[in-house]
Amino acid sequence: MNYFSQKVLSNITGLLMTLCFVTLSSDSLAKESQWQVLDPEELVVMTLPHGQVIIALAPQFSPKQVERFKALVRAKFYDGMAFNRVIDGFVAQAGPEGVSADFPLLTAPIALEPDWPISSSWDFTLVQAPDMFAPQTGFKDGYAIGVDSVAERAWLLHCPGVIGLGRNNEPDTASSHFYITIGQAPRYLDRIMSLFGRVVLGMEHVQAIQRTENQLGKLTQDTMFTHIHKMRMMSDLPEEEQQHIAIENTAHEAFVKKVNQRKHRQHPFFFKSPPPVIDACQVPLKTKLKL
Amino acid sequence: MNYFSQKVLSNITGLLMTLCFVTLSSDSLAKESQWQVLDPEELVVMTLPHGQVIIALAPQFSPKQVERFKALVRAKFYDGMAFNRVIDGFVAQAGPEGVSADFPLLTAPIALEPDWPISSSWDFTLVQAPDMFAPQTGFKDGYAIGVDSVAERAWLLHCPGVIGLGRNNEPDTASSHFYITIGQAPRYLDRIMSLFGRVVLGMEHVQAIQRTENQLGKLTQDTMFTHIHKMRMMSDLPEEEQQHIAIENTAHEAFVKKVNQRKHRQHPFFFKSPPPVIDACQVPLKTKLKL
Repeated sequence: MNYFSQKVLSNITGLLMTLCFVTLSSDSLAKESQWQVLDPEELVVMTLPHGQVIIALAPQFSPKQVERFKALVRAKFYDGMAFNRVIDGFVAQAGPEGVSADFPLLTAPIALEPDWPISSSWDFTLVQAPDMFAPQTGFKDGYAIGVDSVAERAWLLHCPGVIGLGRNNEPDTASSHFYITIGQAPRYLDRIMSLFGRVVLGMEHVQAIQRTENQLGKLTQDTMFTHIHKMRMMSDLPEEEQQHIAIENTAHEAFVKKVNQRKHRQHPFFFKSPPPVIDACQVPLKTKLKL
Repeated sequence: MNYFSQKVLSNITGLLMTLCFVTLSSDSLAKESQWQVLDPEELVVMTLPHGQVIIALAPQFSPKQVERFKALVRAKFYDGMAFNRVIDGFVAQAGPEGVSADFPLLTAPIALEPDWPISSSWDFTLVQAPDMFAPQTGFKDGYAIGVDSVAERAWLLHCPGVIGLGRNNEPDTASSHFYITIGQAPRYLDRIMSLFGRVVLGMEHVQAIQRTENQLGKLTQDTMFTHIHKMRMMSDLPEEEQQHIAIENTAHEAFVKKVNQRKHRQHPFFFKSPPPVIDACQVPLKTKLKL
């Protein structure tokens, strides 16, 4: 349904005219919402001592990791667990390494899901080609992605706020350890980790998690770490506690227009035009509580 | 003195051999320290309610902005001031707009310093050419920079943790409002703002500053903002309170080697090689207290 978006972004000069044309000519697009309501069955509520974080899961891209993470959340595996590897500008990581005696099935290693197959006509919102790290970057279902149309693969980018399962050196060794990126996108990790979602609300609380190591040393006492109070599936909460979350529909023409405006700044503040390129990780993605 | 670094990085295959050669053949390089001790006269200590932040100033790149900022710090202008525009993933900003009646000279508008002139033989540590936003990126004096050898200009990059003066739409309108970047590098601001330093210690405390707006609304009460307790020049502190700060010497061969290792990952964790490119804003720059 957003097949036009690639054309719009590559056809820079004709943008506004094209959008007007599309708006006038396509009833289906005009009706499409600017917001995508998220399924509470794919939302995790992580309660930290200093605030609540809502994480969206992406089973369409990483089904095995999402299945595992949801099972761990439902087993209350992360309740009380510490963020024990928190490096400013890099990641906040939580969870024990290896197989847990209490949860052997839920902590056994699972296969990596570094990317997924696409067809050459696969539909996404293109924003940059090439990006420094990928042949193409863009958005799909509210996620910044990399795309290789020749190899027919796509993947989630390591932008700030994504969540992935940690692993050992061998690819298929992730179990229950997870990380959330908190600094400049470590894009060199793209396609060798299993990302499976992103923080859609409360990223400021993730940023406030106690760092466990810095240039001056490491924290060694668990009591000094930030602990997860509890983690729950949104759909498992009592109905009155459930929040209804919507994110920007990255397939909608309004989003395409926003990205293009970021690429070609017209505001008088930009007395000199920046290079006409987009870092997909630097596009703010809106979230709202749907009342 | 690090003229060799550009060659080393472009001569990827011969890296180790080249480094050995340089080490053996150049006494001056072997003696050069891996650490650069910072001048306390160019260090600012910002005390927040939750921790201390140390900011290094770069008068060699932005003399007017540094002169202004130091004068404001010495006037205790920022003591008690709120971070009143804090957007997660973007900037933490503090200070009043416009000219202050109490400090008319210190808050009058000053000229923009978006970049500086270089000669084509100017010496820096090249890391990427081209970068998505710049013909070349690299490091100079511990700062990530962009370089245009043809136009003979260089500039500081908007990496996380840099500090700049805010301004109105017109270029030469900065006065006393400053911002620190706290998210994915907003590189589209490169060369249209006046960056003049970076946080070298305590970035985690900057990350913990209270956000004043998010997807759900804005804070309106000053009492809810994070306030600067005090800001002092390091050199003005009593001697027993002064900290001696050293940063990684980005001209030293050890740094060049580190960057190159990040570009060509050899660790077994990287079972598949990432693209051989470097985001200059994603290179961790070490700081230590020099005892």
